[in-house]
Amino acid sequence: MKYKIAIIGFGTVGQGFAEILDEKGNWFKEKYGLDFNVVAISDPIKGSVYAEQGLDLTKILSLTKETGKIDSYSEGIKGLDSIHTITDTNANVIIESSPTNIETGDPGITHIKTALNNKKHVITTNKGPVALAYRELAKLADENGVFFKFEGTVISGTPALNLGLETLAGTKIQEIKGILNGTTNYILTEMERGKTYDEVLKEAQRLGYAEAKPDADVEGWDALAKVLILGNVIMESNLKVKDVDRTGITGITLQDIQQAKSENKRYKLIGKVRKENGEIKASVSPEKLDIEDSLAQVNGVLNALTFVTDELQEVTIVGPGAGRRETGFSLLTDLLNIHRLIEKS
Amino acid sequence: MKYKIAIIGFGTVGQGFAEILDEKGNWFKEKYGLDFNVVAISDPIKGSVYAEQGLDLTKILSLTKETGKIDSYSEGIKGLDSIHTITDTNANVIIESSPTNIETGDPGITHIKTALNNKKHVITTNKGPVALAYRELAKLADENGVFFKFEGTVISGTPALNLGLETLAGTKIQEIKGILNGTTNYILTEMERGKTYDEVLKEAQRLGYAEAKPDADVEGWDALAKVLILGNVIMESNLKVKDVDRTGITGITLQDIQQAKSENKRYKLIGKVRKENGEIKASVSPEKLDIEDSLAQVNGVLNALTFVTDELQEVTIVGPGAGRRETGFSLLTDLLNIHRLIEKS
Repeated sequence: MKYKIAIIGFGTVGQGFAEILDEKGNWFKEKYGLDFNVVAISDPIKGSVYAEQGLDLTKILSLTKETGKIDSYSEGIKGLDSIHTITDTNANVIIESSPTNIETGDPGITHIKTALNNKKHVITTNKGPVALAYRELAKLADENGVFFKFEGTVISGTPALNLGLETLAGTKIQEIKGILNGTTNYILTEMERGKTYDEVLKEAQRLGYAEAKPDADVEGWDALAKVLILGNVIMESNLKVKDVDRTGITGITLQDIQQAKSENKRYKLIGKVRKENGEIKASVSPEKLDIEDSLAQVNGVLNALTFVTDELQEVTIVGPGAGRRETGFSLLTDLLNIHRLIEKS
Repeated sequence: MKYKIAIIGFGTVGQGFAEILDEKGNWFKEKYGLDFNVVAISDPIKGSVYAEQGLDLTKILSLTKETGKIDSYSEGIKGLDSIHTITDTNANVIIESSPTNIETGDPGITHIKTALNNKKHVITTNKGPVALAYRELAKLADENGVFFKFEGTVISGTPALNLGLETLAGTKIQEIKGILNGTTNYILTEMERGKTYDEVLKEAQRLGYAEAKPDADVEGWDALAKVLILGNVIMESNLKVKDVDRTGITGITLQDIQQAKSENKRYKLIGKVRKENGEIKASVSPEKLDIEDSLAQVNGVLNALTFVTDELQEVTIVGPGAGRRETGFSLLTDLLNIHRLIEKS
C-alpha cells in the first residue's frame, strides 16, 4: 500500500520527520519497500498546503527555513485547517505532532479521534492524548480497523514502548522505572558540578533544553505523562493524573546534591510504575541513587528506562530523550511498524 | 497453527526453556494465542523420548533433576538420535541447543540444515552455526519457506538482534560495540577489587561462571563469535573468524587495572564491529574506557551493547548475558516472533 501522509503541526518534530523522509526516502523504499508521499501539512502558524499527488519536501523545508511559512508553496490547495486536512484530503496516515497539553489533551485528542473515525492510521508524538485517553483511542482505532501508534511519546525515538510490548514480549514486567525527562536530568547533572539551580535553569533555557515557563519539566508533569503512558500501555493499568504521586526537582538544593555526592550517591528524577500486591503504584520523584546504580550513570540530556522482569531481571535501555531528528525518527519507527503489520496481513 | 516442538540438546538452556513453557504455558496461550506442545527431546547423555501427542514437561523436568536421564519417561518412543528426532517426528519447530563449537559449527550446523531441509522452523542459542554459516542457513530457510531465529546467540535473552534489526529499523547503524562476555567482565570487575587474575578465575570456576578450560571466554573466542553474528546479521557483512582482530584478557595484570583506576578509567573486553571507509572492521580487545563511558559502568556478569546510529546517536541496552532462564527465554522470544509473523500472514 502507498502511504499518503498528512502532517498536523509542523514544529521541530514535524520538520525533523519531514527531513528524514526527504533525505532517506529512497533508502526506505529499497530496504523496507516503504512507498509514501506527504500530501498535506497543516500548522496554525506556518499555514497549510495540500497537493493530492504529493509535496516536494525539499522545497517545503527550505520555505519553512527561509520564510517561516509554507503557504507560498507553488502548487496545491492552501488554507485547510487541521480538521479539514484530516477529513478532506486523500491522506491515509495522519501524523499528529501538535503541542502537548497534559490537562485537556487537546487539540491532539480531537485530531486523533477525527482521523480514526475517518479510518486513517494515526501516529503521534503528542503525550497528552495518550496519557489521558489511551484506552478510548486504542478502542476507536480497533473499531475502525486502523493503527494508532505513539513510540515517540516516551523518550523520543529511543525504543521504549516497542521494547516493552514487542521486543520483551513473553516476560512479565513487574516494574518500569527511569529517567524520563532530559531537562531535569541536565539540571541535576550540572548542579553536581557546583552550579545553583537558578544558574543552570537559565543556561538550560539559553540552550533550548528548558522552556521559559519550565514547570512542565521541573515540577515533573512531563515525566508524569510518560509514567501514565508506560503504565496504561505496557502494564495495562488504568491510571489517571491524580493517581501519580508527583514531586519535582525544585526542592533539591545544591547542599542536598553535594551531601549525596559525599555519600557516593546521586539525585535523579525517577518516574516509576510498579505492581505491588496486585495494585499498580505510580510516582515521579527525586531519588538518591547509589552511584553504581545503572540509572545513576545516565547524565545530561540522556534518558533511560529499566524494565524489571521475571525472566530477564533488569533490562535497561539508554538513549536520547528529545531532539528534532530523534523525535522525528520515532514517527518513522511507527510508520515502518505499521508497514510491517500491513504487509504481513 | 500449533507448534510441535522438538528440543535437540537438553542442557541448562534446553531445560530453562522447558521450565518456562511448563510454568507459563497457559499465560502464553491466553496472552499471545500461542498453542504448543513439546513432542520430543533428544540429548546424547540424557537420552531421548518422543511422544506424538506431547510430553508432560513437569515429569520430564523432575526426571532430569532426579536421575539425569529422560528415557525412563513412562510413554513414547525412546532412543531416537538427534537427526532422527528432527526427521522422523511430527515436530514442526526444532530448538537447537546443543553445545557451541566455534571451529566447525557442528553438530549444530548439521542439525539446522537437516531441519530446514525438512521444512521445519529452527530456533537456536548455538553461536557456532550462526557465526560460521549464517548466510547459507538463512538462504536455506528462505528456500524452504521456514524461519531461522537465534536471538539467544548474543547476550542471551536480552534483546540484541531483534533490537538492531526490528526495534531500531530505519536507522543506519554505523557501529555496534559492547561487553559481550559475562565471564571476562566478572573477572575484570573482581580484579578491580584487588584480586589477582588466578584468584578470580578459580572463584569464577567455582561459581560456574567459567569453564575448567576457560580459553573460549578469556581468550575472546566467545565474544568473537558474537561479533561475527552482529556484523553478519545486522550490518550485512560477510566476516569470517580470521577477519576479527582478537585479543583476550589474559595479558591484563592487576597493575594495569590499578593504574587505570588511578586515571579514572576501567578495562573492559569490548567486541566491536564498525563501518570505516566503506569497509567493515571487527575486533575483540580489552579497552581502557573513561569511567563515565556507559559501557564502563556495566559490571559483573552483566552484558551491554551500544548501537551507534545516524538518527539516535548512541542507544545502549544493558541486561543479563547468560543464565539458564535468561538464555532459555531467548528461545521463547523467537517462538513468539515466529508466531507473530505466521499469524499475520
